[in-house]
Amino acid sequence: MPFVNIKITKEGATPEQKDKLIKGATDLLQKVLGKNPQTTFVIIDEVETDNWGIAGQSVTLRRKRGE
Amino acid sequence: MPFVNIKITKEGATPEQKDKLIKGATDLLQKVLGKNPQTTFVIIDEVETDNWGIAGQSVTLRRKRGE
Amino acid sequence: MPFVNIKITKEGATPEQKDKLIKGATDLLQKVLGKNPQTTFVIIDEVETDNWGIAGQSVTLRRKRGE
Amino acid sequence: MPFVNIKITKEGATPEQKDKLIKGATDLLQKVLGKNPQTTFVIIDEVETDNWGIAGQSVTLRRKRGE
Amino acid sequence: MPFVNIKITKEGATPEQKDKLIKGATDLLQKVLGKNPQTTFVIIDEVETDNWGIAGQSVTLRRKRGE
Amino acid sequence: MPFVNIKITKEGATPEQKDKLIKGATDLLQKVLGKNPQTTFVIIDEVETDNWGIAGQSVTLRRKRGE
Repeated sequence: MPFVNIKITKEGATPEQKDKLIKGATDLLQKVLGKNPQTTFVIIDEVETDNWGIAGQSVTLRRKRGE
Repeated sequence: MPFVNIKITKEGATPEQKDKLIKGATDLLQKVLGKNPQTTFVIIDEVETDNWGIAGQSVTLRRKRGE
Repeated sequence: MPFVNIKITKEGATPEQKDKLIKGATDLLQKVLGKNPQTTFVIIDEVETDNWGIAGQSVTLRRKRGE
Repeated sequence: MPFVNIKITKEGATPEQKDKLIKGATDLLQKVLGKNPQTTFVIIDEVETDNWGIAGQSVTLRRKRGE
Repeated sequence: MPFVNIKITKEGATPEQKDKLIKGATDLLQKVLGKNPQTTFVIIDEVETDNWGIAGQSVTLRRKRGE
Repeated sequence: MPFVNIKITKEGATPEQKDKLIKGATDLLQKVLGKNPQTTFVIIDEVETDNWGIAGQSVTLRRKRGE
């Protein structure tokens, strides 16, 4: 009964891509640890680029500066 | 000073229902462990059905397939 | 298929008390939102008092100072 | 490579304020533990006041009651 | 710069299995969304079976009852 | 009433260092957003190096390889 939380920046991931993340994470837990897919949860959080920081600045700023 | 995080799919929970979740979770911690309600936090996250997966597929897909 | 995470300080909660938290949180989601208990997850995190801060100091320090 | 998650109520924090939180949290980890800012992540979650409870009631209700 | 948190029950996952989870989750984000592995974080939380509940009871109890 | 969660690798942070993180994070929220320290929570999670991955491998492996 694993629980997987994937946090990504909110930049247009499609429902198809989200389905692939859900399927892929569920398969991974089954393959590596034999976990039952029926009770595997995956939650994807999409975070605004203003709200995600790395190296002391927001992703919004990093993108503007070309980093 | 407990902290409770409740994640549900975003499907129209009303402010009244959220208040009941907050009140109920706070009462539960007080009743079972004697925790002070004044310093009990409850945060409710409402997750889009595209972003919540179970059994390897999104809740959006499950609903379409009648599961 | 709700997911509930309860964080408490690690101060001797018994397995029986944890069972009551699990049962109580599951019942709450069923009662308020009609959620299926079969797919309700509850995870309890017990946090060392050194690692939990409130009002700018750790719970360990607060306890020593009688707060 | 620390990871910091800051949850606040959604009440109009500006991008500039968020940048200060990101910068401040990153600096703190460097100053106290010598952590490399390049691999320090900060994620800010802004939570609706209906979805945040303290002392058994939502922040929305607390604000209405002048608390 | 995705962040992935995998929660599993604490039941003897080996360092090799954990490495496979880390590698697999990182690859998944790269394959599906083109995310840079260099800034992909994965954190695995191992949760005691007393502290994980499903269907209103702890995993410890479920295992005893043969479920 | 902010909530801050700081995740670091478990590598010997002292109670004094944790106190500084708690104090620093609480001050930051007060300074930037005027948040009341009395209702600011900080939780520090210390994660085993086997359980933290970056760039597709665990921190344990990275340390062995001198990265």
